Amino acid sequence: MKRSIEDTSIVFVGAGNLATNLAKALYRKGFRIVQVYSRTPQAAQALARQVEADHTADLSALADDARLYVVALKDDAFVQLLPEMVQGHEASLWVHTAGSLPMDVWQGHAGRYGVFYPMQTFSKQREVDFGEVPFFIEGNTRQDADLLKEIALALSGKVYEVTSEQRKYLHLAAVFANNFTNHMYALAAELLQKHGLPFDSLLPLIDETARKVHGLSPLAAQTGPAVRYDRYVIDKHLQLLADSPGMQMLYKAVSESIHEKSLHKE
Amino acid sequence: MKRSIEDTSIVFVGAGNLATNLAKALYRKGFRIVQVYSRTPQAAQALARQVEADHTADLSALADDARLYVVALKDDAFVQLLPEMVQGHEASLWVHTAGSLPMDVWQGHAGRYGVFYPMQTFSKQREVDFGEVPFFIEGNTRQDADLLKEIALALSGKVYEVTSEQRKYLHLAAVFANNFTNHMYALAAELLQKHGLPFDSLLPLIDETARKVHGLSPLAAQTGPAVRYDRYVIDKHLQLLADSPGMQMLYKAVSESIHEKSLHKE
Repeated sequence: MKRSIEDTSIVFVGAGNLATNLAKALYRKGFRIVQVYSRTPQAAQALARQVEADHTADLSALADDARLYVVALKDDAFVQLLPEMVQGHEASLWVHTAGSLPMDVWQGHAGRYGVFYPMQTFSKQREVDFGEVPFFIEGNTRQDADLLKEIALALSGKVYEVTSEQRKYLHLAAVFANNFTNHMYALAAELLQKHGLPFDSLLPLIDETARKVHGLSPLAAQTGPAVRYDRYVIDKHLQLLADSPGMQMLYKAVSESIHEKSLHKE
Repeated sequence: MKRSIEDTSIVFVGAGNLATNLAKALYRKGFRIVQVYSRTPQAAQALARQVEADHTADLSALADDARLYVVALKDDAFVQLLPEMVQGHEASLWVHTAGSLPMDVWQGHAGRYGVFYPMQTFSKQREVDFGEVPFFIEGNTRQDADLLKEIALALSGKVYEVTSEQRKYLHLAAVFANNFTNHMYALAAELLQKHGLPFDSLLPLIDETARKVHGLSPLAAQTGPAVRYDRYVIDKHLQLLADSPGMQMLYKAVSESIHEKSLHKE
């Protein structure tokens, strides 16, 4: 009898934001999370409790019998722990969840391996709706790539198979769209705070800015003084930033970049 | 008998994105839009038709009898046309809708004046829900400030009275939160396009990035390699951008700014 995909038993190595969100989503879809590892016993336990799994803080005590091992650690911890974690489980399928690491980081360690990268920003406080999250999959064999795709499809309608090379650029694009965007919010918040204005008043603008690119390319949606490099407005803004040389420099650099891209629009 | 606020008759000077959205919203709330001016007759007519108003492309033919004149022009056009438009209507209440212009730009021209600034990004294709848009109001008399507040409150629950000085920083913050954020999307889109990846796959991340700061300050929500200035990841990203010196420079500048702000977090 063919096993159903949800019958897949899974060990999680890591109990951070991504691991927590992913393990809970898989658990809710009926997958069996058998064990959670974290070097912080409390973190392993907290996640394990939520997904009815065992937990351990001892990497040499990883469960033997799982079909899939999902590693969600920070890049440097992953690279450091990699040889030790795979030992004794070389025949199982191992995946990491990192946008930035190539698939072949597994080579010479695991026999069956791949990548299972959900492109989203995770926090433990907010539960992410995986139905909307794109998954980028890679496997060292056709069969395992298909298995990973099938698992991802249980969570999300958006599953893509990409190369490690493409994934590097995905991760870099995510840094712009998430980390850098959030920093623009942070600088705006700082300006408002300094002048006794509520950050909340910016939220409708932030939301509309995001909504707009659902229907319009970001290049077409671009507005503001930098598009035509309106020197009058830009100089006034630079004067307002005179007491923040870092922000002033950034304002100039981003404005010049906007202007340059706008010139090449048609 | 006291007039109801919706009885206010309004002339619109300008028929661009902001004027179109604002005039339609006021019209829908029962305000009487009596006339729309634009130097482009087609634009004046297109908006006038939607709000059952007259239209003109002749500034000297502005309607005499309106209680309120709302000017929504580009800053330079406004400053240029200001003396001519007010002539003969000095006793009416005049407002501009610009984040960047001080209230006293009216001084010496109109007798009663103010600012009516809805902080949002507008396009003719997308109708904005004004219920969520913050309005920033200023008036040269207490009475007219109150009248403007009352009109804004008919559209939105978020109405603030601010000084021209504060409004300058609001506008600057909006440049960061809207124009600069959108540019981060544009750079991400360019990277994906170059590597055969769909921009659509970034939308869930973009949406979640915006949603996150509804519950968390942007500083607390900040993640990514720049927070701790993870030189290993940052250097790899800079290498990926080797063929785009402008983007490379921007990546570095934004990362350094993120790192610097993160150091001062606690």
